[in-house]
Amino acid sequence: MFTATTTAPVNIACIKYWGKRDTKLILPTNSSLSVTLDQDHLRSTTTSRADPTFTKDRLWLNGVEEEIKPVGRMATCIAEMKRLRKELVEKDSSAPPLSTYFVHIASFNNFPTAAGLASSASGFAALTASLAALYELPSAPTELSLIARQGSGSACRSLLGGFVAWNAGTLDSGLDSHAVQIAPETHWPDIHALICVVSDTKKGTSSTSGMQRTVETSPLLQHRIKHVVPQRMQDISAAILAKDFDRFAEITMADSNQFHAVCLDTSPPIFYMNDVSRAIIAVIEEYNRVGLLPENGGKRKAAYTYDAGPNAVIYAPAAHIKEIISMIVHFFPQQETFNDPFGLFGAAGVTAALAPGFNANVAKTWEAGSVKSLIHTKVGDGPRRLGQEHSVLGDDGFPKYLKQ
Amino acid sequence: MFTATTTAPVNIACIKYWGKRDTKLILPTNSSLSVTLDQDHLRSTTTSRADPTFTKDRLWLNGVEEEIKPVGRMATCIAEMKRLRKELVEKDSSAPPLSTYFVHIASFNNFPTAAGLASSASGFAALTASLAALYELPSAPTELSLIARQGSGSACRSLLGGFVAWNAGTLDSGLDSHAVQIAPETHWPDIHALICVVSDTKKGTSSTSGMQRTVETSPLLQHRIKHVVPQRMQDISAAILAKDFDRFAEITMADSNQFHAVCLDTSPPIFYMNDVSRAIIAVIEEYNRVGLLPENGGKRKAAYTYDAGPNAVIYAPAAHIKEIISMIVHFFPQQETFNDPFGLFGAAGVTAALAPGFNANVAKTWEAGSVKSLIHTKVGDGPRRLGQEHSVLGDDGFPKYLKQ
Repeated sequence: MFTATTTAPVNIACIKYWGKRDTKLILPTNSSLSVTLDQDHLRSTTTSRADPTFTKDRLWLNGVEEEIKPVGRMATCIAEMKRLRKELVEKDSSAPPLSTYFVHIASFNNFPTAAGLASSASGFAALTASLAALYELPSAPTELSLIARQGSGSACRSLLGGFVAWNAGTLDSGLDSHAVQIAPETHWPDIHALICVVSDTKKGTSSTSGMQRTVETSPLLQHRIKHVVPQRMQDISAAILAKDFDRFAEITMADSNQFHAVCLDTSPPIFYMNDVSRAIIAVIEEYNRVGLLPENGGKRKAAYTYDAGPNAVIYAPAAHIKEIISMIVHFFPQQETFNDPFGLFGAAGVTAALAPGFNANVAKTWEAGSVKSLIHTKVGDGPRRLGQEHSVLGDDGFPKYLKQ
Repeated sequence: MFTATTTAPVNIACIKYWGKRDTKLILPTNSSLSVTLDQDHLRSTTTSRADPTFTKDRLWLNGVEEEIKPVGRMATCIAEMKRLRKELVEKDSSAPPLSTYFVHIASFNNFPTAAGLASSASGFAALTASLAALYELPSAPTELSLIARQGSGSACRSLLGGFVAWNAGTLDSGLDSHAVQIAPETHWPDIHALICVVSDTKKGTSSTSGMQRTVETSPLLQHRIKHVVPQRMQDISAAILAKDFDRFAEITMADSNQFHAVCLDTSPPIFYMNDVSRAIIAVIEEYNRVGLLPENGGKRKAAYTYDAGPNAVIYAPAAHIKEIISMIVHFFPQQETFNDPFGLFGAAGVTAALAPGFNANVAKTWEAGSVKSLIHTKVGDGPRRLGQEHSVLGDDGFPKYLKQ
C-alpha cells in the first residue's frame, strides 16, 4: 500500500504578501516573511495514497469531496508532484511507477473554518508534503515550496519552520520565487502568538480578488513594493537573527498597517479590520507606550498583525503573554473558556487585569463575544511525517470521516 | 462706532490637506481643493469692533471668552490684519487709525460643536473677513486667505465661494500659499451635499498632531505628496470646469481613501473612520456600481468624503439627493426629524427606499441613531458682509449672548 500522512503548519506574515505579478504561477509583486506556528496547536493533516485500482484523482477536505478542476490549483500541484516522481523513477527503475497511478487525498484542519484562519496555506503545504512523502522525493523544502506556491501563494512559507521568507524572485518562470528559512524555530523559541478571533458579520473581499484590485487601482502600492518592502525584509531578517523583539515588533506592526493602508487606497476600497480590530490595536499600542518608557525598559512588548480579515495575531515574548491575555480579557470579556495550553492561569481560569501605568481609556469594555476566542501558540517547526496510525484515509482508500 | 459683521462658510475638501512643511506659518506639504458650502445652512457669524476705549484685544466664541495667547494663531491673524490697516492709513491720512485701537470680536457658529464639523475653517475665515470689513481693506480674498491660513490651514479656502484650490506654494515666506477660486458656485450650482453626522464614542487624534505624526512616520505620504496629488489637482480642476460629476466623484472618493490610508500608514496608526463610516462607503459604492451599469447611464451618481472624523459628506447632483437620503435612511434609521431645507419630502417626512437593482446586502440595518442626523446643503458663495442689525456684539461692545 503506497500511502503517507503529514501535518503542516499555519504561518502568519510579518511582512505581508499582497499583489501578484503572475496570477497563473502565483508570483508575488513583493517578498514577504512569516512566522510558522506550532502544529501542536494548529495544523492541517493530510494523507495521500496512490493505487493502481483508483479510477481518478480525488480529494476530500474536512470530509467533503472537492472537485479537482482540470486547470485549477489543486490539479497543478498534483501534476507537478507526479512530474517529480516521474523524474525519480526515470533515474531509478526499481522505484514503483507511482506517478502513473491515481491518488486519493484526504485533509483535515484541526481549527474551525469559522475561526477565520487562512487554511489554504497549511492545506496546500500539507498536500505538497504528503505527496512528497508518498513519492519519496529527495526534494528540499525550498524546492517543494515552488509547488505549494502554485496552490496558494502563502502556502510556500508553510513548508518550513521558524522564520521564513518568500523571495519574490524576478524570473518569469517563477523558479526563484520560493521560501527560504531565515532562522529555525529553535533559534528564537521565545516567540509566542495569541490569536484573537474577532466576530464579523460582514463578508469580506476574497484576498485573491482583493489583491488584484489593489494592483490595478492603488497609486501607493507601487511605492510600497519598490521602496518600502525590500528594506523591511532586510531589517526584519536582521532583527530575527539578533532576536531583537523591539525592532521585530516595530516592523511587523508598520507592515500590517501599510498592507491595510494599500487596501484602503484601492478602488473601491477594501476594509478587513473592523472597530474591534482597531480597539485591539489601540490596546497594544498603549501597552507598548508603557513598555517604551525608560523606567520600564524602553522596549516594545507585543506586536499586532492582521491578515485579510478582522482577527488579530499578537506576537510577544513568552514572558509577556499572560499579561497580554489578561489585558485583552479586560477589554474583551470572553464567553468561551480559554484553552490554556501553556498552563498560565491554573484552575481558576483567566483573570482580567491591566499592567501598571496602562491608560484604560484607550478602549471601552466591549460586550462579551466581540472577541470570540483566544488561541495561544508559539513559533514551530515545518511539516511532520506521521505514522500510518494517523492516516485520515481508511484501508479502503476513502476518508475515515465524512461530513454528514 | 467702528464695527463690521460678516458670515463665512464651511468648506469640505475633495483633495485633502494633510501635513505641514512649516508648522508656524501653516504651509502645507501638498495642495488641496474644496467645495464651499452654502452659508444659508452652515456658517460662522463674526462681529469685530475697534474702539479707543477698549483696554485689550478680546474674543468670544459661542458666547465664551477665549484667551488670545501672545504668539498664538488668533493673535497672529489679528496682528496681520492690523498691519494691513496701518499700511492703508499710511497711504490715506484721512482714514481713522483703527489699527491703534484694541478690538472686541464675537463669533457664533450656527451648527453644534457636537456635529463634529470642523468649525476652525469657517471661524478663522469669518474672523479675517470681519476685520477686513472693519478696516475697509481693499484686499482681494486670495490676499486675505494668506492671513486666514495662519489661523487654521483650511480656513484659507473658506474665503472664497464655489470650488477652491489652496496652492501649496514653494516660498519659505508662504506668500504663494493661498486660496484661488477654480470656479464660482454659479458655474456648477447643481452640486449638493449631504452630511451624515456619525456617532462616535472614541476621542479622535487632533488633526494638528495627527498630520505631523504622518509626516514623520508614513513611508507612503511622500509618494502621495510628490506623485499623486499634483495630478489629481489638475484632473479634478478639469472635471469641475467641465462639470463632469463622474470624474469629480471618482477623484474625490479616491483621495478621501488615500488620506485615510496614509493615516493608517502612520505609527502609531490613526483611525478616523469607524464601522458606520465604512458602511456608508459600502452603500455609496453599491449605489455607484448600479449607476455605472450601461443601462443606467454608466456614471457615478454620488461621492463620499471623510475628514479627520467619522462623518461622511456625500456630494451629488441635486437630482439624486432625494434618492440618496432615502437610501441612507434605509440603512441608518433616523431618530431626529430630517430638516428638509429643499422641501424634497413634503409633510410626511423622509421615507426609506432603495434604488432599483441595489444589492441591500452590502450593509446591515443599523440601530437608530448610528447616523445621528443628516444635513442637506449645496455649494455656496464666499464670506458675506451683513448689516449692523446682525451684529453679535451689543452697543456696549460685548457679546449679545453669553453662554450661561
